Amino acid sequence: MDLNEKLKDTRLFFPIDPGPTARIGGMVGTNCSGTNAVRYGTMRDWVVNLTVVLADGSIVKTRRRPRKSSAGYNLSSLIVGSEGTLGIVTEITLKLAPVPEETGVGVVTFPTMRAAAEAAIDIVHKAVPIGAVEILDDVQMSVINRAGNTDRTWQETPTLFFKFAGSKHSVKDTVSQVGSIVKARGGSDFEFAKTEAEQKKLWSARKESLWSMLSLRTSGSEVWSTDVAVPLSRVADLVEVCKEEMDSLGLFGSMLGHIGDGNFHETILYDGNTERQKVEKCVHDMVRRALEMDGTCTGEHGVGLGKKEFLLEELGAGTLEMMKAIKRALDPSWLMNPGKIFDA
Amino acid sequence: MDLNEKLKDTRLFFPIDPGPTARIGGMVGTNCSGTNAVRYGTMRDWVVNLTVVLADGSIVKTRRRPRKSSAGYNLSSLIVGSEGTLGIVTEITLKLAPVPEETGVGVVTFPTMRAAAEAAIDIVHKAVPIGAVEILDDVQMSVINRAGNTDRTWQETPTLFFKFAGSKHSVKDTVSQVGSIVKARGGSDFEFAKTEAEQKKLWSARKESLWSMLSLRTSGSEVWSTDVAVPLSRVADLVEVCKEEMDSLGLFGSMLGHIGDGNFHETILYDGNTERQKVEKCVHDMVRRALEMDGTCTGEHGVGLGKKEFLLEELGAGTLEMMKAIKRALDPSWLMNPGKIFDA
Repeated sequence: MDLNEKLKDTRLFFPIDPGPTARIGGMVGTNCSGTNAVRYGTMRDWVVNLTVVLADGSIVKTRRRPRKSSAGYNLSSLIVGSEGTLGIVTEITLKLAPVPEETGVGVVTFPTMRAAAEAAIDIVHKAVPIGAVEILDDVQMSVINRAGNTDRTWQETPTLFFKFAGSKHSVKDTVSQVGSIVKARGGSDFEFAKTEAEQKKLWSARKESLWSMLSLRTSGSEVWSTDVAVPLSRVADLVEVCKEEMDSLGLFGSMLGHIGDGNFHETILYDGNTERQKVEKCVHDMVRRALEMDGTCTGEHGVGLGKKEFLLEELGAGTLEMMKAIKRALDPSWLMNPGKIFDA
Repeated sequence: MDLNEKLKDTRLFFPIDPGPTARIGGMVGTNCSGTNAVRYGTMRDWVVNLTVVLADGSIVKTRRRPRKSSAGYNLSSLIVGSEGTLGIVTEITLKLAPVPEETGVGVVTFPTMRAAAEAAIDIVHKAVPIGAVEILDDVQMSVINRAGNTDRTWQETPTLFFKFAGSKHSVKDTVSQVGSIVKARGGSDFEFAKTEAEQKKLWSARKESLWSMLSLRTSGSEVWSTDVAVPLSRVADLVEVCKEEMDSLGLFGSMLGHIGDGNFHETILYDGNTERQKVEKCVHDMVRRALEMDGTCTGEHGVGLGKKEFLLEELGAGTLEMMKAIKRALDPSWLMNPGKIFDA
């Protein structure tokens, strides 16, 4: 957000849009993504090169500045997403994107999460060039109303939030293609914003999602927020079954996600140890289901401490051993961010 | 080409478009790219996951199938472009792209290589969503005429070949944006093809470039073809000075390239050892200039045997040592494609 504020008179912007507190270093660490990834890819795609201090004290630059290169191993893509376990990143050169000629925001409600998810899948499968598509469940929409951080009242039902970007004509095309797909999947009429102020207002529910949830904490209550990603064809199944389990366990939690990437988040509010155990079951079941669907235990948050147990299940012993061999080669004394991703 | 032939009734295609003899395994090995990279990226962007047999006999799958993941190190991007030096790739899962609603091909001539290159740079800097932009110099155009593999005669002057792809409206927008930029840089009127047959015909000069050059070999003569890439802002400078040197050495060679990626090729015909030494000087000077411009010794062909000496200059000792540490960790006996990229 700071970077884009600095860039605002240049007609360029940095397109990766994670949670508002993210910092560039952390974004490199986790290969973060966020709302714009369906169009612009993830952090890895926007890193030109990195300067890294390795465990032996040597300072390396991963590559030079051409748009593409086939000169040796892709060290940038190895460091991005390695959560600080291979070295300390001291310089980051980023690409920027030109600000699109035309932008827009659209909001559509659906009777069920499945219907909303399936509309998003259709749109991506048809390669309609949207800027972003985000899914928010009924709980999340109600949380936003309760928190009152936006200046309107939202329908408390599964909702898709779209960004549009491109030339004047192409945005018009995109909106009309999205409109007919949404209609076919039982969506409401499109609410559409064109001016910058209207766009900001219409996107505000998405922007305020996490803060709204956090603002509902009472003293002693905690929030567990986590993410998984699955192949696009399976995301409607996963969203539906996860939603059912959260409800059946009597938990107060919301689902929202970068549905166009098959990536979504559960954010669950809990209080005390008994409820924590339920949350743990709910989250672990979500991860296991994602893995059964050939997905990943984390689409953008990273492994950190909390997902280490799932990494073996996801990748298998051989692949994990290959990662550890690289770790040992570059950091034999296991000095760099020890304990993250895997143990020595 | 075989893959896209198989896919032709599915409305999907594989967008990476290297030289016509490329095979999927080699494309993974070199992180190949080709004419469509300016829009669709390189091979790395289209590999979902890989199965790799490592030097110790273990079989690993680099990742699962989600569109994005932050679960551990990015092994796919490490293997892609590693030229077989880290393991034997036995399975490759690729993404496909939907065939665009509308396509087109456009051709524009310019008085100089610099003018043509600068037009291409402007187009990419303004993020005009072209499908491809290729530069061919006057020699290459004349070679195509002499070889006679296309059914027309081309103007023998620097030429840009464009592909357009998108919705009907967006292609119209793109063509008009490209048209005004080209005009401002002194380009000719646009020759434009809309039907599939016309497009094929208009693109034929680009398609036949390499074959045309090869067909001019006489007994005993050889072709040296190589590539470099530089930051987009420097490609016009590089193209101009390389062209001058090739002419001043009296060599018969052409320049063509994926100018939108700052990536281009010299293809030089030579006969005997004296001429070979001139070619070597010409190629080495091109590489050294690319490195001075913060570019790479190879944008898509890979290091192989021929560019090993430049890798140290490009990356520095520390970065090369980091690559070698990874190599040693995964292949301690240096069994995998030994001698490529670097020596033990």
